[in-house]
Amino acid sequence: MTWREKVHEVIYEADTTAGKAFDVALLIVILVSLALVVLDSVNHISIEYHSLFITLEWIITIFFTLEYILRIISIKNPKNYIFSFYGIVDFLSTIPLYISLIFAGSAALLSLRALRLLRVFRIFKLARYTGAGSVVLVALKKSLPKILIFLYSVIIISFIAGTIMYLVEGPENGYTSIPIGIYWTIVTLTTVGFGDIHPVTPLGQFIATLIMLLGYGIIAVPTGIVTAEMAKENMRSNTQVCYNCGEDEHKDRAEFCHNCGYNLNRGKEEKKEIKK
Amino acid sequence: MTWREKVHEVIYEADTTAGKAFDVALLIVILVSLALVVLDSVNHISIEYHSLFITLEWIITIFFTLEYILRIISIKNPKNYIFSFYGIVDFLSTIPLYISLIFAGSAALLSLRALRLLRVFRIFKLARYTGAGSVVLVALKKSLPKILIFLYSVIIISFIAGTIMYLVEGPENGYTSIPIGIYWTIVTLTTVGFGDIHPVTPLGQFIATLIMLLGYGIIAVPTGIVTAEMAKENMRSNTQVCYNCGEDEHKDRAEFCHNCGYNLNRGKEEKKEIKK
Amino acid sequence: MTWREKVHEVIYEADTTAGKAFDVALLIVILVSLALVVLDSVNHISIEYHSLFITLEWIITIFFTLEYILRIISIKNPKNYIFSFYGIVDFLSTIPLYISLIFAGSAALLSLRALRLLRVFRIFKLARYTGAGSVVLVALKKSLPKILIFLYSVIIISFIAGTIMYLVEGPENGYTSIPIGIYWTIVTLTTVGFGDIHPVTPLGQFIATLIMLLGYGIIAVPTGIVTAEMAKENMRSNTQVCYNCGEDEHKDRAEFCHNCGYNLNRGKEEKKEIKK
Amino acid sequence: MTWREKVHEVIYEADTTAGKAFDVALLIVILVSLALVVLDSVNHISIEYHSLFITLEWIITIFFTLEYILRIISIKNPKNYIFSFYGIVDFLSTIPLYISLIFAGSAALLSLRALRLLRVFRIFKLARYTGAGSVVLVALKKSLPKILIFLYSVIIISFIAGTIMYLVEGPENGYTSIPIGIYWTIVTLTTVGFGDIHPVTPLGQFIATLIMLLGYGIIAVPTGIVTAEMAKENMRSNTQVCYNCGEDEHKDRAEFCHNCGYNLNRGKEEKKEIKK
Repeated sequence: MTWREKVHEVIYEADTTAGKAFDVALLIVILVSLALVVLDSVNHISIEYHSLFITLEWIITIFFTLEYILRIISIKNPKNYIFSFYGIVDFLSTIPLYISLIFAGSAALLSLRALRLLRVFRIFKLARYTGAGSVVLVALKKSLPKILIFLYSVIIISFIAGTIMYLVEGPENGYTSIPIGIYWTIVTLTTVGFGDIHPVTPLGQFIATLIMLLGYGIIAVPTGIVTAEMAKENMRSNTQVCYNCGEDEHKDRAEFCHNCGYNLNRGKEEKKEIKK
Repeated sequence: MTWREKVHEVIYEADTTAGKAFDVALLIVILVSLALVVLDSVNHISIEYHSLFITLEWIITIFFTLEYILRIISIKNPKNYIFSFYGIVDFLSTIPLYISLIFAGSAALLSLRALRLLRVFRIFKLARYTGAGSVVLVALKKSLPKILIFLYSVIIISFIAGTIMYLVEGPENGYTSIPIGIYWTIVTLTTVGFGDIHPVTPLGQFIATLIMLLGYGIIAVPTGIVTAEMAKENMRSNTQVCYNCGEDEHKDRAEFCHNCGYNLNRGKEEKKEIKK
Repeated sequence: MTWREKVHEVIYEADTTAGKAFDVALLIVILVSLALVVLDSVNHISIEYHSLFITLEWIITIFFTLEYILRIISIKNPKNYIFSFYGIVDFLSTIPLYISLIFAGSAALLSLRALRLLRVFRIFKLARYTGAGSVVLVALKKSLPKILIFLYSVIIISFIAGTIMYLVEGPENGYTSIPIGIYWTIVTLTTVGFGDIHPVTPLGQFIATLIMLLGYGIIAVPTGIVTAEMAKENMRSNTQVCYNCGEDEHKDRAEFCHNCGYNLNRGKEEKKEIKK
Repeated sequence: MTWREKVHEVIYEADTTAGKAFDVALLIVILVSLALVVLDSVNHISIEYHSLFITLEWIITIFFTLEYILRIISIKNPKNYIFSFYGIVDFLSTIPLYISLIFAGSAALLSLRALRLLRVFRIFKLARYTGAGSVVLVALKKSLPKILIFLYSVIIISFIAGTIMYLVEGPENGYTSIPIGIYWTIVTLTTVGFGDIHPVTPLGQFIATLIMLLGYGIIAVPTGIVTAEMAKENMRSNTQVCYNCGEDEHKDRAEFCHNCGYNLNRGKEEKKEIKK
């Protein structure tokens, strides 16, 4: 086993003690780097500990650089990694500080802002170590068509309602343009209701109530979609098939088929025998 | 095949390349016209590009006029189209600019506002090309009775609560009238909570909390309605088809067709035999 | 059939043309009286049409008085009506104006306010003619235990969270007392979020986010309760029992038992024969 | 039966009249003490009735002290109680006033605040007498994994969205730091929407609408989790018990016990025979 294979095992696999240790270490570094991004944005903190932040930021960047290089070296076909989602994320979450060296000076402040944004992509690394991210993505894909129809109708409603509110309330009441009207409608439909803009005229308030009651009905749609999906999964979850009558909706802890009384375990044994 | 028939095929049907092309073109024009309505409402933009907007508006209006005329000519019985929902929508979304020519001058500004509103009806055209609109309508129709009962109880609650809040808080705290009280109650029941009006007296705040907890329960109703409907649909989705009568809505565990009493399993066996 | 019986039929029953006509008339009068209460509360309107309101109010009051008397006369056992829910409501929604005659003068304005509140009880009459009210009540009764547990936990949470916020933010940031803190917590838990009071200190904002995420989970509870109830009802809805094997979960349109293939209709016929 | 055993029966068990009486008494005392905490926080009240509050506070503290001592004496193995959840709660909810004697003077005011917070722990005692608390805890435990994934994705989203909003809107519009941005994002995602901070720039408002629509979808997740759980429970609720092994979670249509394979119907027949 070459050193490359060893590195690969440590970085890409998590079934060895070394691999697990590496993952945990990486996880901690990511969390620290995220904490830095956040704290650095708090003025009085960033001023006080500025030099500390810079050093820590450099340490983390170097760590990520090494990791990135090792990932490329230790894999058979580097392209598979480099152009994979996480390959790009790793790259984007490593380079910022280097760039900040090149584009120093006047533009520094503005560019740093953008860099901060880039550094946030590190959070995606977290997703990798939990699988939660992927779970969410799958769930989204599943109910995408329904959600699109839902979004489509929301857009139509917010478009019409936004225009009406703009015409009814007008700029003097904060509805300075149709986009603002649409923004307000979505704020209202989603029941967020900031209150930065709100109807003042009786007619406007009446229309607002209609929009709210509508939003009430609309908020049900995504909930309905997700809930239905989950109920479905719950149904699916318990699946041991009776070898005698093919009944397939048994309780998880059922030992006998509730349809024909056949011993479910025996069925399983026989299946195993067949496989041999 | 006369030119009329050809035009009809292009405008009314979407199964030919020409028809599809026309639909896409129309879709783009509608989206552009909507973008115009929105951008025109943003002050500084509308001032800067005023002349551009006028010209584009005219081009679109002419396009819609031609489309409208062609629709009338190419159809056998024009009345069917003219007095259909989309017939009226097409008309309303075409005339505004012409009207603005007649009612020019002093009233122009105000009338233009109304025209903008009319022009928004073009959005309904979008619905036609996706079917989403109709889907939404169907869903609404299905659970209409339940939703009406729900709305009815919301109105009763908001009416009583609105009056109580008006009496408790009074005009000095922003509850200037019962309608305002009702408006506030709906804002609260729907959990929007703008905060433009909010209870100030301890008693008022106590009643408010009760209303919020009530709204909590009420928001569940529409969600429940929609979710139940969706779960129902999911149930239907998983189907075994009867080989005898083609009935396709059996229970998962059905052994005989509930429509003709035919043995579903036998049907399956025969299918297998056929496959061999 | 005495005139009393006739009156009873008209007032208490809705199966005759006269009865229906009376119900509709009463419904309209109630709606008008409610409109009065609302419009009278709008200052400039109540000043302008003050005399009109008074006259209309008197006409309605007399109408209700007559109705109330007739209801008492035409019923066999008047007590059953007088001390029934609607008997009391009818009484309360009739007397206000008479009382205002007695307690006139200085206290008039304040008492009038209270009267308005009483007059709102007329809305309950609306409920009678739709059955919606009762439906809502039934639904509430059904899931009362679950909802009580839910409310109980909400109270505990809001109590503790309210105290913490009061200690963390303190009076200087608007959390002037624990009751205010509790009020704010419920405003936040129910996702209403007026914004009249909101955390200012970093710690307060952090706790607030925790409360919001908690509220997120809690809002699910009532929804879950109602939805589950509704799903259950949907399940129940289709119930025809097989006369042969007793299977009771058939589709509404099932003609044969999906468990044993027995003709469900035949089963029904046999049942009828037995009944003979 | 020694006096210790008697005390134990009264304090720890609720099946005797004395035990029930004690529980009710304790419940009342707790509620009174909570009322004190709340009212004491309202300035004008606490000033007016200050001496009354002190005395009542002392009476309650003494009551709790006695209860605590008796609980320790009357139990066989005191450690089991002292280091149990409620043992600690009882201790924490008793000592505050004693501590306030020691740390008097200048620090009094601040410490009193903390004490108030401690005294709130008494509310947990309430939970004991209803079981509601435990019910809530069980429910939480059950759907914990799903909820964690949900919270995880919420954190990721709020982190990225918060950073973007901080970069887009910047300190001049109230987004003074990333933590504030995250706070705002959660306020928006949970549809609370205080409005203390809200987007001002067009781009910021556009991103805000996206976050709101996202929050719309996300709010569905916990609802879905809870609802699915509840629907599941409803499923379980309707049960036929096996006459042989007492298994009580069969499917409605089960013909044989899935635990021991015993014929459920035969069980029923035998029951009938017994009844004869």
